[in-house]
Amino acid sequence: MAKSGKNDDAKASRLKARVPRGFVDRGPGELAAAERMLAEIRAVYELYGFEAVETPLVEYTDALGKFLPDQDRPNEGVFSFQDEDEQWLSLRYDLTAPLARYVSENFEALAKPYRSYRAGWVFRNEKPGPGRFRQFMQFDADTVGAASVAADAEMCMMAADTLDRLGLAGRYVVKVNNRKVLDGVMEAIGLSGEDEAGRRLVVLRAIDKLDKVGAEGVRALLGEGRMDPSGDYTKGAGLDPARAERVVAFTEAARATLDETFAALEAVVAGSERGGEGVAELRDIAAQIAAAGYADRVKVDPSVVRGLEYYTGPVFEAELTFPVTNEDGVPVRFGSIGGGGRYDGLVGRFRAEPVPATGFSIGVSRLLSALRLVNSPIVAGAEPQAPVVVLVMDRERVADYQRLVATLRNAGIRAEMYLGSAGMKAQMKYADRRRSPCVVIQGSDERDRGEVQIKDLVEGAKASATIETNEEWKAARPAQVSVPETTMVDAVREILARHR
Amino acid sequence: MAKSGKNDDAKASRLKARVPRGFVDRGPGELAAAERMLAEIRAVYELYGFEAVETPLVEYTDALGKFLPDQDRPNEGVFSFQDEDEQWLSLRYDLTAPLARYVSENFEALAKPYRSYRAGWVFRNEKPGPGRFRQFMQFDADTVGAASVAADAEMCMMAADTLDRLGLAGRYVVKVNNRKVLDGVMEAIGLSGEDEAGRRLVVLRAIDKLDKVGAEGVRALLGEGRMDPSGDYTKGAGLDPARAERVVAFTEAARATLDETFAALEAVVAGSERGGEGVAELRDIAAQIAAAGYADRVKVDPSVVRGLEYYTGPVFEAELTFPVTNEDGVPVRFGSIGGGGRYDGLVGRFRAEPVPATGFSIGVSRLLSALRLVNSPIVAGAEPQAPVVVLVMDRERVADYQRLVATLRNAGIRAEMYLGSAGMKAQMKYADRRRSPCVVIQGSDERDRGEVQIKDLVEGAKASATIETNEEWKAARPAQVSVPETTMVDAVREILARHR
Repeated sequence: MAKSGKNDDAKASRLKARVPRGFVDRGPGELAAAERMLAEIRAVYELYGFEAVETPLVEYTDALGKFLPDQDRPNEGVFSFQDEDEQWLSLRYDLTAPLARYVSENFEALAKPYRSYRAGWVFRNEKPGPGRFRQFMQFDADTVGAASVAADAEMCMMAADTLDRLGLAGRYVVKVNNRKVLDGVMEAIGLSGEDEAGRRLVVLRAIDKLDKVGAEGVRALLGEGRMDPSGDYTKGAGLDPARAERVVAFTEAARATLDETFAALEAVVAGSERGGEGVAELRDIAAQIAAAGYADRVKVDPSVVRGLEYYTGPVFEAELTFPVTNEDGVPVRFGSIGGGGRYDGLVGRFRAEPVPATGFSIGVSRLLSALRLVNSPIVAGAEPQAPVVVLVMDRERVADYQRLVATLRNAGIRAEMYLGSAGMKAQMKYADRRRSPCVVIQGSDERDRGEVQIKDLVEGAKASATIETNEEWKAARPAQVSVPETTMVDAVREILARHR
Repeated sequence: MAKSGKNDDAKASRLKARVPRGFVDRGPGELAAAERMLAEIRAVYELYGFEAVETPLVEYTDALGKFLPDQDRPNEGVFSFQDEDEQWLSLRYDLTAPLARYVSENFEALAKPYRSYRAGWVFRNEKPGPGRFRQFMQFDADTVGAASVAADAEMCMMAADTLDRLGLAGRYVVKVNNRKVLDGVMEAIGLSGEDEAGRRLVVLRAIDKLDKVGAEGVRALLGEGRMDPSGDYTKGAGLDPARAERVVAFTEAARATLDETFAALEAVVAGSERGGEGVAELRDIAAQIAAAGYADRVKVDPSVVRGLEYYTGPVFEAELTFPVTNEDGVPVRFGSIGGGGRYDGLVGRFRAEPVPATGFSIGVSRLLSALRLVNSPIVAGAEPQAPVVVLVMDRERVADYQRLVATLRNAGIRAEMYLGSAGMKAQMKYADRRRSPCVVIQGSDERDRGEVQIKDLVEGAKASATIETNEEWKAARPAQVSVPETTMVDAVREILARHR
C-alpha cells in the first residue's frame, strides 16, 4: 500500500483483458489444422451419403432436456437465460438434442431415413479444469428413422474410415456393445422397473469409469462407494457382492473369439428376453461389419456402455490405442476420441410416434491433439507460407509502397506493406517475427533507378551465421539482389519457391 | 374445448419442437454455399498477410462494453448470464470488442502491427423481424497497432478485392469517409465537449439513416424529430435549421471530382483543426488508393458515417449497387454488405497506452444472398453430387448390401444403403427424393448370377415421360443394365459421369 498513488489507481480502475475461465482463444496454427481435419471428416461423411445441417447455438431449454452425465440437479451444467417473453433459453450442451428438435420440426420435409452431419460448438456450465473446457467443438453424424442395426453398423464403419483417412490406420479400435445386453444384466440382478431408474444410472456410470478406475474401482462403485485419490467420495449403487460380480462379469465378457464372447454374454443375460435381443443385435452388427471388410477395426467389446442415459441399443466408442504419458507420468492408451449409440426415445419426445435414431460424435479438439501427437500430415504445415513484407523506407512515399504490394498480391503472392511507424531495423525484426521468406526494399536510390532490393531472409539467416564483421556483411550483402521493378514478381517467386 | 379429450391432453403435454424465435436452422445448400464463399474471403485476407484467430462466443460482460447502436439502456441488446463466481458473462454481439480483449491480453506475444481475421457467430438480444436474426455471422478483418491511414486504405482495397473475387466486379463501391471531418462539423455548430456527447450520437445516427429516410428525413431527425410511416416517433437532435443545414451540407459534399469534393469538405469544416486533419487523411487515403489501382472501386463519400460510437477516424461502407426490389415493390440498390473503420480507443480501454486499430466487417448472410441474386458461380452448385442408393431387396442379406455399398465407397463413390424398413416402391421413391443419379439392385436372381442391376434414375425419368403403359415399360426396361458385381464400380462411374 505504501507505493500506491495516482498511477496505481489508474491501473486498478482500468478494465482487465481476460478470456473467461474455461474458454480459450485459438491461433492460426490450430485453426488451420482443425480446418483441414474437419474437411477430411466431412469428406468421409459425404461419401456415406450424409448431408450437412446446422442448428443455432441457442435452443429453448425444455427442448434440450436434461441428459448431461454427472448432473443430477436441474439446469446444472447448462448456460441458461430467460427471454423477454419469459421462456427459458439455453446454450446447447451437445448436438444430439438440437438435432432431435430439428428433425421433429421438419419431419415431413425430410427424406427418411435421414442421414446428416454437423460440426459445432457446445457449452457446459461446469467447473473448468485442465483439458476441461466450457466451450468445445463436437462433430456429429446421425441417422434418424432407421430402426435397423444396419444404421449402427454403418456408424462404426464410418468412424473407422474417418480415422483411416486421418492417418490413424492401425492405431485405433471402434468398440461396439449394446445397452440391451446391459438391460438384461440389470433385469437379472433385479434392477428393472421405474423405481430402479436412479440405481441403474449409478451402475451405468460406474461401468463407464472402468478405464479410469479399473475393475476394483468399478466393484467399489457398484457396492458401497469409492474414495478417489483426491479424497472425493462417490456414493455407490449399493449392490451386494454377488450382484456386483455379475455386472463386472458382463464388462469382462470379451473372449478370444467373437463366438465365445457371444456365448459368454448369453450366459450373463440368461433369462432376460431383452438381453437376448441385445446379443442377437450384436451378432447381426458383427456379421455386417465382417462382410463389409471392417472386422479388423470394429470390434464387439462388452465393457463399453457410454455415460449418457438416453441410449437404447447399440453403443460405440472410438479409441486410439497408441500410448501417451498421463499426468502421473505413466504410459496409458490415448483413449476415446468419440462415441455414440442408438437413442430411439429422443426424437419421440416431440412426436406422437416413436422415431428410431442413432449417431456418432467426435470430440474435435481431442482428436486434433491426437493427430498432432502422431505428426499426421493432415495437420502438419497446414498454415500458409508467411507473407512477403514490403518495407516503408520513406514515409512520404507510402502510395508507392501500396503500389508495390498491390503488384505482388495481384500476382497471387501473399504480401503486406509494413504498417507501423518504426524504422528500418524494427521493420526487419517485424519481418523476422512474421517468418517472412523475404522483404522488398525501395529507398530513394532504388526508386531513382526504377529498382527494388529483395532480401532473402532464410538465406540471410544462414549467411549471418558464418559472417563475422559488419564490414564483411556490407561487402558481401548475402542473399540480397537488386532487380528492376518490372521483374520484382519473378524474383520474389523464385525465392518463395526455394523456401516452400 | 368441446373436442378436448385424452388425445388432446397427450398432445398438449408433448414437447413442442420449435427453433427459438429469431434463430434459424441451415440446410446443406446454404452451408455448402456459405463454406465456399468464406473460403474465398479467407483466401483474399491471407493474400494480404492477415492471419486467422478466433475467440470464444462468450466474454465477460464488462470486457464487451456497450457499443451497440440504438441501445441506450445498459445490457439491452445482449444475452447475458451470471457465472457461479457472480461475474457476468455475455454472448458477444460483434467480433470487434472480443478482438480488442484478445489483443490486449496477448499484447506482448503478437508481432505488431497485428493483422488478423475471423468469421464467427454473434448474438443480439433484439426483437426478431424479417431478415433480422438474433444469431448471425460476421467476417471481420482488423489491423491493430497501425496509426497510419495506410492501414485504412488497405482495408478498403481488401474489401474491393474480396468482392471482385466473389464475382461482383463492377457491381459495388467501397465508400470511405472520416469521422474527424464530422467532428469538425460538430465543432463548427457548437456540439463539441463531453456535455454534448449524447446529442452528437443522435446526429450520427440521423446521418446514418440517410439511405433509409432521405435528406428530408435526416433534416427532421436533426431538428425536432421524425414520425416514421409505422407511426414510431424518433426524437431529434434539436438543432436549429441553420446548424442542421450545415450537417446536411456535409453529407452532400460529394462533387464531380475528388479535388472539388475535398474543397467542399474543407469549406464545411472551416475553422476546425480536427476537421482539417480529417480531410487531409482522406486526401492521403485517396492518393494511396489511386496509386494501387483501386480508384475505380474505392471512393470518398461524405455521406458515410457508420452508426457505431467508437469510430475515431476513417470509416468505410461496402455497398452493392445492383437493383433489387424492396418490400414495397420499389427497385432499390442492394446496399451495404459490410463496413468498418478506425477505432483507436477500443483496445486502449484495457491498457495504459492508446492502441490504434482499424477493421472491416462483412455481414455473411447478407453477402451470401447477394451472391445468390447474381447467380454467382461461387455459390451455384456448391453441393456434392447426390449419393448412389443400394436398395435392400432381401432383409436377410443386409450384410451383402453392406459389402456392395462399401465397395462403391472404397472406390470413392458417394453411396448409401437404404436403411429404412419400406418395400421396393418406397425405396425407389426415397432415391428420387434424394435425387440419386442411380440405384443398385440385387435380388436373389441377380445374386445367384453374381450380378447387380443398375438403374439410371435421370435417364429413367426422361424415358418414363414417353412410355405409356406398364407392359411397354417392362419390355423396354429403359435406363437399366445388369452387370457382373465385379464391374459394378465401372458401370456406376459411367452413369455418374453422364450426370455430373
